[in-house]
Amino acid sequence: MLGLMQGRPLLISTLIEHAAKCHPAAEIVSRTSEGPVHRCTYGDIHRRSKQLANALTALGVSPGDRIASLAWNGFRHMEMYFGVSGTGAVLHTINPRLFPEQIEYIANHAEDQYLFFDLGFLPLIEKLAPALKTIKGFVLMTDRAHMPADGTLDLICYEDLINAHSSDYDWPTFDENTASSLCYTSGTTGNPKGVLYSHRSSLLHAMLTCSVDGLALGTAETALLIVPMFHVNAWGMPYAGAMCGAKLVMPGPALDGASVYALMRDEKVTLALGVPTVWLMLFGHVDANRLVPKTDLVLRRVVIGGSSAPRAMSERFETNFGAFVIHAWGMTEMSPLGTVCNLLPKHRDFTLEQRLDIQAKQGRAVFGVDMCIKDDDGKLLPNDGKAFGHLMVRGPWIVESYYRGEGGEILDADGYFDTGDVATIDPDGYMQITDRSKDVIKSGGEWISSIDLENAAVGHPAVAEAAVIGAAHAKWQERPLMIVVKKANQELSKEDLLKFLDGKIAKWWMPDDVVFVTELPHTATGKLQKMKLREQFKDHRLPTDA
Amino acid sequence: MLGLMQGRPLLISTLIEHAAKCHPAAEIVSRTSEGPVHRCTYGDIHRRSKQLANALTALGVSPGDRIASLAWNGFRHMEMYFGVSGTGAVLHTINPRLFPEQIEYIANHAEDQYLFFDLGFLPLIEKLAPALKTIKGFVLMTDRAHMPADGTLDLICYEDLINAHSSDYDWPTFDENTASSLCYTSGTTGNPKGVLYSHRSSLLHAMLTCSVDGLALGTAETALLIVPMFHVNAWGMPYAGAMCGAKLVMPGPALDGASVYALMRDEKVTLALGVPTVWLMLFGHVDANRLVPKTDLVLRRVVIGGSSAPRAMSERFETNFGAFVIHAWGMTEMSPLGTVCNLLPKHRDFTLEQRLDIQAKQGRAVFGVDMCIKDDDGKLLPNDGKAFGHLMVRGPWIVESYYRGEGGEILDADGYFDTGDVATIDPDGYMQITDRSKDVIKSGGEWISSIDLENAAVGHPAVAEAAVIGAAHAKWQERPLMIVVKKANQELSKEDLLKFLDGKIAKWWMPDDVVFVTELPHTATGKLQKMKLREQFKDHRLPTDA
Repeated sequence: MLGLMQGRPLLISTLIEHAAKCHPAAEIVSRTSEGPVHRCTYGDIHRRSKQLANALTALGVSPGDRIASLAWNGFRHMEMYFGVSGTGAVLHTINPRLFPEQIEYIANHAEDQYLFFDLGFLPLIEKLAPALKTIKGFVLMTDRAHMPADGTLDLICYEDLINAHSSDYDWPTFDENTASSLCYTSGTTGNPKGVLYSHRSSLLHAMLTCSVDGLALGTAETALLIVPMFHVNAWGMPYAGAMCGAKLVMPGPALDGASVYALMRDEKVTLALGVPTVWLMLFGHVDANRLVPKTDLVLRRVVIGGSSAPRAMSERFETNFGAFVIHAWGMTEMSPLGTVCNLLPKHRDFTLEQRLDIQAKQGRAVFGVDMCIKDDDGKLLPNDGKAFGHLMVRGPWIVESYYRGEGGEILDADGYFDTGDVATIDPDGYMQITDRSKDVIKSGGEWISSIDLENAAVGHPAVAEAAVIGAAHAKWQERPLMIVVKKANQELSKEDLLKFLDGKIAKWWMPDDVVFVTELPHTATGKLQKMKLREQFKDHRLPTDA
Repeated sequence: MLGLMQGRPLLISTLIEHAAKCHPAAEIVSRTSEGPVHRCTYGDIHRRSKQLANALTALGVSPGDRIASLAWNGFRHMEMYFGVSGTGAVLHTINPRLFPEQIEYIANHAEDQYLFFDLGFLPLIEKLAPALKTIKGFVLMTDRAHMPADGTLDLICYEDLINAHSSDYDWPTFDENTASSLCYTSGTTGNPKGVLYSHRSSLLHAMLTCSVDGLALGTAETALLIVPMFHVNAWGMPYAGAMCGAKLVMPGPALDGASVYALMRDEKVTLALGVPTVWLMLFGHVDANRLVPKTDLVLRRVVIGGSSAPRAMSERFETNFGAFVIHAWGMTEMSPLGTVCNLLPKHRDFTLEQRLDIQAKQGRAVFGVDMCIKDDDGKLLPNDGKAFGHLMVRGPWIVESYYRGEGGEILDADGYFDTGDVATIDPDGYMQITDRSKDVIKSGGEWISSIDLENAAVGHPAVAEAAVIGAAHAKWQERPLMIVVKKANQELSKEDLLKFLDGKIAKWWMPDDVVFVTELPHTATGKLQKMKLREQFKDHRLPTDA
């Protein structure tokens, strides 16, 4: 027997309609590629996204067509979030930090029909254009005054495009499982794979983002989106913002410490979201200028994701900024919200030190994310905070398969997606990542975390960067090989380093060898390429291997 | 083109599974019908609701079957929320405050298969049993020790029933639109009508309940559910609690001031939810015992719904309890959450007086509730805070039709449900109810709010209660007739009262006549029955009617 409630679908257009009705005056503030700070409201975004929808229809864009963006965070990009998806077309956000050949690959793979891009990407687009086979038109996201006088490409001006159309537009109603946006992973191996989000997944994800134990986004918040709109929809914040009416602050391309600090101060930012790298630049700016963030800013919370939030970063935000760090974890394949490291009532009386131990974990699953750890045979491991296994997730905003079936069947028999991470989960539900599955070292059937070894090694004052990989071993199958980049003008021997590690790690985790190199290989987005290291050291003979 | 995210359905069973995984130790504290306070956890509820699911299966209960409860708020009732709906059966919560003949009507109308009830309702059930035609078994929600020694009915003991079964149970997976629970309206006219909630509607509703701008329920909260589980699923709180892991405190049948105050104090309640009547009893207890709530309690927020929160009540909670009152509005037909009166950033610097003006409104629509006001011809009226019209709502947790099609087609051409209220909506989205549609007085094409007139009248020290109805008028179609109950031993004339109203209401709203009566008619749940008054005064001749 079915219930008798209204069968209204969860559509992205309902977000901006709700915003226009309930918080039309809440602001979207953007630092633009053109330079100045631009201010508008959800009411404006609503109106202009409908103009865009009419413009796209006039261009012949049909439901399901992919429309690409190559753009920083800003109001026009936000208009595309609603104007493109609202018509039933698919917004394909392209990450400009990918290598040009990867951008070419994914634009062709997605068969993008139009490409919208920011001023700063004009040289890149002019170079790529001949190779982009399916693009019918290039739209420069600026006004007439900033259009280039000449160039190799026939460009459409965004403002001209939308201003030629009325804001009178009725969003179509369709199946909530319809594709809304597309984002390619910046995988460390092989070609990027596309994750195709739906209206339903985006709305459910936004609901949990606005929940108290999610990211607690609300109408009283002013959120600075350092996290880019070209990467997993800026963690879904534009949708969540429209849902609750939070003021959104968009930094454009200026992610340097001075620019970010000024935006935080001028716009009275209460919540900021981004990856650790940006916060290091912010700290650098504060130090260099002897600023007093606690006095200058009203920042209350910082959400850190993308990679692990160092303990020292959480501590500094707390003591120097008066802001609480919320460690969050997710993936492109998860829309991305998986876990959030909020505190429980029992942590209320913890000291700062004790609290930082909790805050270092990746956090607890938000409702909707069903998470577990399994061993190599697919057997469920206990949530005891000790066992570590493959981190598996399932839920309505987690990928079922990649775009065009790349990678084939990706769920296990229980419907779980393998995150590629290895983690522990404690009895309170706090998950902590210990390694990437492919990087964990399997020594005689037991697992050694390469990340834990690397973290221990970089604690040595002479170590700039360290990577640990499994090297072949006749008796143990694999044993840890540590590969180290020394800091400039520092001396360090293998023996010194092993002695330093002694007592900091389990005895049987001690690397069997240490080699020094001048640099480690990284991807375009800065991730360590351990696969390349494994290739490079595949013939390395461990001294312990008889 | 469809998205490629996992098609996992939104099911009530996933709530209790999430709770068992992520916050198994969070507590459910119940004051029982048997007397003592009972403590258990979400882990226990999870285990026992699975035992119940096995027991129901053994009793032959099939998906879609209606299982009735007649019970106060407590852990066993909560087990039914998950154990019954989780199997695909429908939990029919019966309101014990209905007249016995109404209970008989709805149990038969719903064709309930089993009836679970609290100790205190045994005399009522023994009387009703012969008339309940579809009930196959009566389950007394207690343990063996509290089972009656004799009686007219063959009773099943709840604890015996579930303890005969394992907690090993795999929740079935089915369409998220499947019916989950059934609640009949306590309408003022005609037979009660059934609202059939679905798993989907209940989960979406819970997500917004946990949102910051909803009721902001979170894991750090201890929520006292004065709002009964037999009425609109206690505003959906048992579901929302499982979603976020809030500690829930259930008062059982003891809603007197002393009992409620003791629970608040002993369980460190931070959030309490209920109707105004209960809070008046609480104030009475505080006054009679000269208590200091601000010192005794850690209460931070009080959600008031069901009927309008008087301004003085919000003020007293703030000054005397240090608790912020959140005015909320909804209906059985809306699961019930419609609007929540949270404040906007611009209200931060308001004085208490200014804030109370805002807090007196019913609040802003939560995402998912699409709300508007329309005139008699279905024309949209502006959200200007002045125009008042029929309050219309649509959304995924709002009724599409009543159980068994009672009342026929109930949505308008745009899919809106008529709430039966008349309201204004201001430019910030704050809705304020001005009257019930059927009670508004239509004077020469203009509307006069009966509620505003009644509120003005009860401001007179000699007035105990007042009702205003439209009486027939040759020239104006209708004019206001005020019907007043005087306080004991008080003198009051029509002229005195009209003079008192002068200046407090618009001149043309002035009642054309005042009559004094000894009492006004009410429903079983305490609502004023204006229909009866209209019947009673249908031949009343207004002195102004030539």
